[in-house]
Amino acid sequence: MIEDNEAKFVACHQPVFLEKYDMLDKAAEGATFLLNSNASAEQVWETLPQNMQKQIIDKHLDVWVIDAYKVAQDSGMGRRINTVMQTCFFAISGVLPKDEAITRIKEAVEKTYGRKGRKIVQRNFAAIDATLEQLHQVAERGEINGFERQPTVPEESLDFVKQVTARLIEGKGDMLPVSMIPADGTWPLGTAAVEKRKIALEIPVWDENLCIHCGKCPFVCPHSAIRSKIVRAEEMQNAPDSFKHVQVKGKEFGEGWHISYQVAPEDCTGCGLCVEVCPARDKSNVSHKALNMEPIEPNLGDEKVNWDYFLSLPEYDRTKLKFTTMKHAMTAQPLFEFSGACSGCGETPYIKLATQLFGDRMIIGNATGCSSIYGGNLPTTPYTKDDNGRGPAWSNSLFEDNAEFALGMRLAVDHQTAYARKLIEQIDAAGQLDGALVDRLLSNPQQDEAAIQAQREDVAALKQALAAIENEDARHLVSVADYLVKKSVWSIGGDGWAYDIGFGGLDHVMASGRNVNILVLDTEVYSNTGGQMSKSTPTGAVAKFAAGGKAVTKKDLSMIAMAYEHVYVAHVAFGAKDVHTIRAFLEAESYDGPSVIIAYSPCIAHGFDMRENLSQQDLAVKAGHWNLFRYDPRQLEKGENPLSLDSKRPSVAYGEFTRNETRFSMLKRSHPEAAEALYRKAQQEVEARWQHYAQLAELDYSVEDQEKPEQEKH
Amino acid sequence: MIEDNEAKFVACHQPVFLEKYDMLDKAAEGATFLLNSNASAEQVWETLPQNMQKQIIDKHLDVWVIDAYKVAQDSGMGRRINTVMQTCFFAISGVLPKDEAITRIKEAVEKTYGRKGRKIVQRNFAAIDATLEQLHQVAERGEINGFERQPTVPEESLDFVKQVTARLIEGKGDMLPVSMIPADGTWPLGTAAVEKRKIALEIPVWDENLCIHCGKCPFVCPHSAIRSKIVRAEEMQNAPDSFKHVQVKGKEFGEGWHISYQVAPEDCTGCGLCVEVCPARDKSNVSHKALNMEPIEPNLGDEKVNWDYFLSLPEYDRTKLKFTTMKHAMTAQPLFEFSGACSGCGETPYIKLATQLFGDRMIIGNATGCSSIYGGNLPTTPYTKDDNGRGPAWSNSLFEDNAEFALGMRLAVDHQTAYARKLIEQIDAAGQLDGALVDRLLSNPQQDEAAIQAQREDVAALKQALAAIENEDARHLVSVADYLVKKSVWSIGGDGWAYDIGFGGLDHVMASGRNVNILVLDTEVYSNTGGQMSKSTPTGAVAKFAAGGKAVTKKDLSMIAMAYEHVYVAHVAFGAKDVHTIRAFLEAESYDGPSVIIAYSPCIAHGFDMRENLSQQDLAVKAGHWNLFRYDPRQLEKGENPLSLDSKRPSVAYGEFTRNETRFSMLKRSHPEAAEALYRKAQQEVEARWQHYAQLAELDYSVEDQEKPEQEKH
Repeated sequence: MIEDNEAKFVACHQPVFLEKYDMLDKAAEGATFLLNSNASAEQVWETLPQNMQKQIIDKHLDVWVIDAYKVAQDSGMGRRINTVMQTCFFAISGVLPKDEAITRIKEAVEKTYGRKGRKIVQRNFAAIDATLEQLHQVAERGEINGFERQPTVPEESLDFVKQVTARLIEGKGDMLPVSMIPADGTWPLGTAAVEKRKIALEIPVWDENLCIHCGKCPFVCPHSAIRSKIVRAEEMQNAPDSFKHVQVKGKEFGEGWHISYQVAPEDCTGCGLCVEVCPARDKSNVSHKALNMEPIEPNLGDEKVNWDYFLSLPEYDRTKLKFTTMKHAMTAQPLFEFSGACSGCGETPYIKLATQLFGDRMIIGNATGCSSIYGGNLPTTPYTKDDNGRGPAWSNSLFEDNAEFALGMRLAVDHQTAYARKLIEQIDAAGQLDGALVDRLLSNPQQDEAAIQAQREDVAALKQALAAIENEDARHLVSVADYLVKKSVWSIGGDGWAYDIGFGGLDHVMASGRNVNILVLDTEVYSNTGGQMSKSTPTGAVAKFAAGGKAVTKKDLSMIAMAYEHVYVAHVAFGAKDVHTIRAFLEAESYDGPSVIIAYSPCIAHGFDMRENLSQQDLAVKAGHWNLFRYDPRQLEKGENPLSLDSKRPSVAYGEFTRNETRFSMLKRSHPEAAEALYRKAQQEVEARWQHYAQLAELDYSVEDQEKPEQEKH
Repeated sequence: MIEDNEAKFVACHQPVFLEKYDMLDKAAEGATFLLNSNASAEQVWETLPQNMQKQIIDKHLDVWVIDAYKVAQDSGMGRRINTVMQTCFFAISGVLPKDEAITRIKEAVEKTYGRKGRKIVQRNFAAIDATLEQLHQVAERGEINGFERQPTVPEESLDFVKQVTARLIEGKGDMLPVSMIPADGTWPLGTAAVEKRKIALEIPVWDENLCIHCGKCPFVCPHSAIRSKIVRAEEMQNAPDSFKHVQVKGKEFGEGWHISYQVAPEDCTGCGLCVEVCPARDKSNVSHKALNMEPIEPNLGDEKVNWDYFLSLPEYDRTKLKFTTMKHAMTAQPLFEFSGACSGCGETPYIKLATQLFGDRMIIGNATGCSSIYGGNLPTTPYTKDDNGRGPAWSNSLFEDNAEFALGMRLAVDHQTAYARKLIEQIDAAGQLDGALVDRLLSNPQQDEAAIQAQREDVAALKQALAAIENEDARHLVSVADYLVKKSVWSIGGDGWAYDIGFGGLDHVMASGRNVNILVLDTEVYSNTGGQMSKSTPTGAVAKFAAGGKAVTKKDLSMIAMAYEHVYVAHVAFGAKDVHTIRAFLEAESYDGPSVIIAYSPCIAHGFDMRENLSQQDLAVKAGHWNLFRYDPRQLEKGENPLSLDSKRPSVAYGEFTRNETRFSMLKRSHPEAAEALYRKAQQEVEARWQHYAQLAELDYSVEDQEKPEQEKH
């Protein structure tokens, strides 16, 4: 007899789950267990954990195995295994007669993918047929000799992580008493690091002899899973044999400073962007680069050791980095790592970059959307902290109020800072503080890392001095003294937020003139909610609510922001012009007013292999789909044009860009006539937009030597 | 003994209330009654209504009279009587000892008006002192010989108006059973006409011999209280002797067509704008114009008769009017009349104009604000209908969703129209309709009044034909046939709505590309809610939340709207360039897409005598505070620049404009240093903005004969 909470069928779609979950505790006596594994029916027993082997025997489970990734790959479906696993389910679960089930699956494929093209349907059919051939029953039961499952989180984790986070990861959150949940909503940082996804089949392997130390690989990595560190060679004498490091190129570092590029093998998703971007090739074998994807199995053991060693090495001194260069910027520690974003995500490199540049001072309001899901994917978060315990403060309110939410953070910070300054002046007036310290604290402009570091040291000195002062002002000042260090307030979200649902608030923040940095991760579609059209969706793209291709032109959020004239605006695409992106972030953050960075973010919703993420960004710029520019209001004060158009007149037909992306190309099949008209319209728009921006960038902002109306004394 | 709901003190601040309300029914035995009247203490008894005379005698009331308007006028306070009436209250109510009360009032004046300038304080002091001299007790009681109060609404009113509206006007709405209130929220139009405000002390009197028939007086009238009609002379043979009319100038009307300019004496508020705008002067006496303000008393009797007669005359045929000219446009009947807006209101002329041009086809969503209060000031509404029973449909939802609300109206109308067209085609396919009629109905572009009239006649013919057809399609078509006549959908509100609270929705409507006409009545401040700063408030203006002068530049809503490139945008000021305003309205309405008209609307919150409304608008344009321009996306299709800058480079110092308005000038007294800096900033902004717009108007939009990237077949 089957209990209510028992299952007659259990499937494990990811072999790594064997290590993570007790998959068979709810399996009923005699249930069917389906496992996706690259081990054969004969060998698979040995790969199971001990307790699972025991459950299979005790409960007399019927075990089936399939190498779903191989079937998918061979059928031309890449890493998409859903059709394969679905076919297995119907083939062995007995829910429907097998033949009828297969017929129905094929009908469903026809219906679901028909409009995406014949080829896709045929690949699915091939996968279904191959599945039936490759699905094998595991007849033999061996000894109970498997591995023992590791604890969910490492032994050295915080108590909170072991007691709360781990339970939630295991899916046992419901067993936690409410009293163990943080009363004020504060959760520890850096917890995504304890969740090892281990989904890469291949990982990048570094050839230190070819590498030119350009920094592009850590820059493009969506998961902060490849890093560089610059460390004195003498500090690495105890390095494991397999750990690679070489003298760093660049005179500014000096002899004896070595660089290492290291992959986090269990966090890498295998997207391959680091290899795509790598510019260093072996001249005698041009397919060999300084980074190359290799199967994970033979490399995993060494690289785990190397990664742990890499983490133990000290960070390079931030105050000595020139953040405008890629190599230097990428030496800074990212404080956003191992998020649950899709493999090859086009958004996360921007957030990672911001945390490298400003993470130890960032306060982030995050809109609802992908970035709130991978940003605060409870129980874990990818936001983390440096060795000083400093990292971004992050929170998510609602879809519709994120800009206002961040503005509130800004106002609170400004108020606390003003209060701290006032208290210093009050205590100083009573002669209780060192005058030189007070002067420095109140006058430090904090415009670079060195000055910020100096301010931090002065704040520490201040706190020490305050400890000896017995009055209420001193106690209050201790509580707000950290606000004397410049904070970097950010409002982050997608186009659904910034162009649509939260636009009223975005406008309010822009109008306020306050120093909030707004990062718009523009995927041109509601990504997280399932691909609905947003105001950012471009002409002719197919999305939900725009099945016939979007007819209305993409909203020009930059132009709207520039209408304020006091808003810093940047339009960037990290895969097209990487240093331009870094420059825009630095300028935006340094501007003492509202800044809007609109960041082109390719997404799986665009319908292309995300390994082409960077080249598609490049095409988007070359075809005029995404112009690069920066608008800096500081130029106005000098009587100069604030707009700098940083990309060239379109040099590639719009169709060269769009034909690679299903969001555009599918329209030709589903609505051929509309497609023709919309693409013509889009091509015209692209040209007109460039011409318009080019003319704006040439406008005269000098104060004219004209006859002025006489200004009467008012 | 005084009952709970009885009053010991009753004051009547407006003599006209004697005619409207039973003011003494709640007065207690022996209560004090204060009356503002220009009748002396000796003569005032005769001016009271019978029932009030009786109540005064029966309840032994203590009666006091003051000519508050005279006291205010003589003290330099214009028509502001609040200080006078307040002083009377404290002088005779016995709430405080009289001397103490007067001292306290003067302290309050000092506190309230001190920052507005010494002169204002002194005028108030003078008014207080004069009040004490001019306040007289009415000792004598005469016979009960007064007039009888007229019914609240005319006898010929609709039953609903008599039974419901009148009760509400009387303040007795609480006595109505709920069942008498319209279940669907629909209220009859034209009901403001039954409420005669009679607040003018002077009204304009027409000199038909001087008049040049320019049409400017009805154009600027905020209350539609002066009108022109063009009627055949032969139709006016029975006119009252006092009714004036002359041969209309202009060959297009022909001999025997006369024009009359007629005031509605009980609806006029005496603002004087019609006289201010009148360009026709007597050469031998230049202070005498074709319109002149004269005291109402000697004119009221005749003008009431004249006005009733004027209303009985037929309207001129709309299909023969050239709406681009002022004289013609002002011959069209306004379908917005006698609103409760302030005397001299800068908003209402725009709404009136829209109703003259499109009122019989308008559907209006109205944002919360002044325009929702005077627009739907239940129990009455100023929106009315023509002799065919056609007028605007009007509704008000919320502050924050008005643009969306109007968009919903647009979508509903479009859907109904499409449904009607589909039904026509279905019925026509069955051979049941006249083919020529069907062709006309489906192909009429309705781009002018004549074509719209033709469509209306065809719709009438269609309905007649449908009556003879026995099927469901025909019944459905009858219900939606009126949607075959082009509707004009409007979203109306103030800057608090459009720039701030409802901006997200405004943006959504602009982005939608749908044909919604958005009218922004820009007073540059939250007027109705009490003068709070909005994003439209200009640099240096004082408002609530900007007591030190607004430091952030006025939001450039036009520039934001133009960023869409498919939005018609107009920036108008009716008092500065009247025909420009008419042209903008016609262009906006004719554009088959979103239109935004941003209309400069002087307001009492600006702090100047509203009789200067027009000259201040003119100064606003000449000083560059308010540039006039139109942006027509239809120009883009021709490869031409869509922006037409219609005002000249600023020719007057900004201070010439601002010094006349307290919102600006008070800053100099309250925050002299901030004022200096802000005015300098404002002057620079004004110049920079003009230069920027002038350059934008010169940009090249021609399709360049450049080397184009080859367009690949997609």
